[in-house]
Amino acid sequence: MTEHIIAFPGGTTRFCFDADLEQLRQLAPPEKSFILTDENVMIHYQRELKPWQVITIPAGEASKSLETVDDVVRQLIALDAGRDALLVGVGGGVVTDIAGFVAGIYKRGIRCGFVPTSILAMVDAAIGGKNGVDIGAFKNMIGLVRQPEFLLYDYRLLQTLPEEEWINGWAEIIKHACIRDEAMFGLLEQHRLEDFQKNGQLLHKLVMKNALLKAGIVAQDELEQGDRKLLNFGHTLAHAIENVYQLPHGFAVAIGMVFAAKLSEQHTGFPATGRLVALLERYGLPVSMDFDKDQALHLMQADKKKANGLIHYILLETLGKAVIQPLSVDTLRQQIAL
Amino acid sequence: MTEHIIAFPGGTTRFCFDADLEQLRQLAPPEKSFILTDENVMIHYQRELKPWQVITIPAGEASKSLETVDDVVRQLIALDAGRDALLVGVGGGVVTDIAGFVAGIYKRGIRCGFVPTSILAMVDAAIGGKNGVDIGAFKNMIGLVRQPEFLLYDYRLLQTLPEEEWINGWAEIIKHACIRDEAMFGLLEQHRLEDFQKNGQLLHKLVMKNALLKAGIVAQDELEQGDRKLLNFGHTLAHAIENVYQLPHGFAVAIGMVFAAKLSEQHTGFPATGRLVALLERYGLPVSMDFDKDQALHLMQADKKKANGLIHYILLETLGKAVIQPLSVDTLRQQIAL
Repeated sequence: MTEHIIAFPGGTTRFCFDADLEQLRQLAPPEKSFILTDENVMIHYQRELKPWQVITIPAGEASKSLETVDDVVRQLIALDAGRDALLVGVGGGVVTDIAGFVAGIYKRGIRCGFVPTSILAMVDAAIGGKNGVDIGAFKNMIGLVRQPEFLLYDYRLLQTLPEEEWINGWAEIIKHACIRDEAMFGLLEQHRLEDFQKNGQLLHKLVMKNALLKAGIVAQDELEQGDRKLLNFGHTLAHAIENVYQLPHGFAVAIGMVFAAKLSEQHTGFPATGRLVALLERYGLPVSMDFDKDQALHLMQADKKKANGLIHYILLETLGKAVIQPLSVDTLRQQIAL
Repeated sequence: MTEHIIAFPGGTTRFCFDADLEQLRQLAPPEKSFILTDENVMIHYQRELKPWQVITIPAGEASKSLETVDDVVRQLIALDAGRDALLVGVGGGVVTDIAGFVAGIYKRGIRCGFVPTSILAMVDAAIGGKNGVDIGAFKNMIGLVRQPEFLLYDYRLLQTLPEEEWINGWAEIIKHACIRDEAMFGLLEQHRLEDFQKNGQLLHKLVMKNALLKAGIVAQDELEQGDRKLLNFGHTLAHAIENVYQLPHGFAVAIGMVFAAKLSEQHTGFPATGRLVALLERYGLPVSMDFDKDQALHLMQADKKKANGLIHYILLETLGKAVIQPLSVDTLRQQIAL
């Protein structure tokens, strides 16, 4: 196990990389801890989770709703969970978001920790304390910023992850490379997904690098006044098409990154859209799609990154260097029409 | 106007006592502010609130639900409220709770302020940043602790407050006297409700004293590790009977205070249950009721104040001095059976 303790302004998180689910007993004693997970995780890991009282939600983005929150809270009440309880989300980003949000509001806040079970959750969703619940087609329209006490990484849990979910998670890895780490971009160009699936040490190093890259940005800017905004690269368009077309999050982000790269060409002279497209395709990710442009523009305007009528868009100057640029809706309308 | 600025650990609140609703324009510019209110307030003050975009919810405790939260969030999205928006709750405790909670989670947190329109909200509910949403019969089972930017007190708004709501609010005033201010207990014994309804200066002084008494306790202990717990005097039983019997909150608290006073007699030798009963009756509040004892005990066990199997009960040693005492469920069962 490789442990890193990161102090965020709002709380400290213990990152336990290369760990074993068995070690969860120490972090979350079964007498006072409750596990939130989804049906897919339960199918594979029911035996491992047996020591705990478990609340199970349906798998998939549709569970990121206030109805699910209501249901989980009622189950916590029925299980007699007190203010001293610890809620552990074991699953992908949907599970960690709901666990983090419910822990933030149940009895005005109880402790929480996460065991991410997908690439996407391991390198992104479970890190940084942001959680979100969707309101209809509007993604993450409500939520909190609140750090988990711990993150436990057991890579064996990825053995049951479907291929599509591996690909899905890779979009955020490529995003991190784009905004902060040109060397990692080069490393990814030299490998294929199978390399990471077969080589545990290669995977461990990549996951840890990505988790710490994100944690480092968040530790400097927990409330997203500055650099944390850069993590939204590819996400403004992604959020506008993801729920409407029921795209996996990473697929929507991949399409959003290519759109943002093209915007960047015009506004910053970004020279490497071709390399980005090639890398995304190398890892099985989509780079474009036909979507309803008017609807996407409408949803982009409701996105959280908007202030003073301008949408704060994340553009690339070069591979590894991102910038924030306020763009008018008209500018986006022109690019989206191309 | 009498202004007090109170610095809580989580944020600073500007208390504007003896103010005029007209002054809300300065605190909450209509271009960037949205008002949340209820149907009763709208009937009386539609004209005064005209400069703002207003979201109206049904009056009454039933609105403290996740369905209302969902509805208000959808309306904020439809009104294009950005991250820079300010949400102002104009109403009683239900409105300020929903406004505070929604502001805490909408787009992961926007600014908020309150204009309390009831005695209960002016002296208690709108102060201290705690908000709560009910889950079925379980009161305030979810919520946040988050300070409003300002509180504007316009006592003219009380002219349209029904008599029952005046009485309802008085329970929290008597509670404050019980736990912290014997002199105020004496003052209340020398007056009647009409005195405060007729004498604006007398009312202003009492409201300000109570608001600052509560704010002072919260400023020392925002997260309820210590003295803030004392404000729960009378509330453990109150929360267990209020929603089941649809009692006004203050009526339930009055009954809860008499129950806690009797428990205090046994555990601290509290000598003044008779004076408390007389004062509550003087202000039109109930001092007992027939309720389902098993159900109340069951609900008390789900209350937030429970940890390690013991319920942290607030007892009185003398008038003006409260203490926290962990009591077993059996102890409560015996008292409730009397």
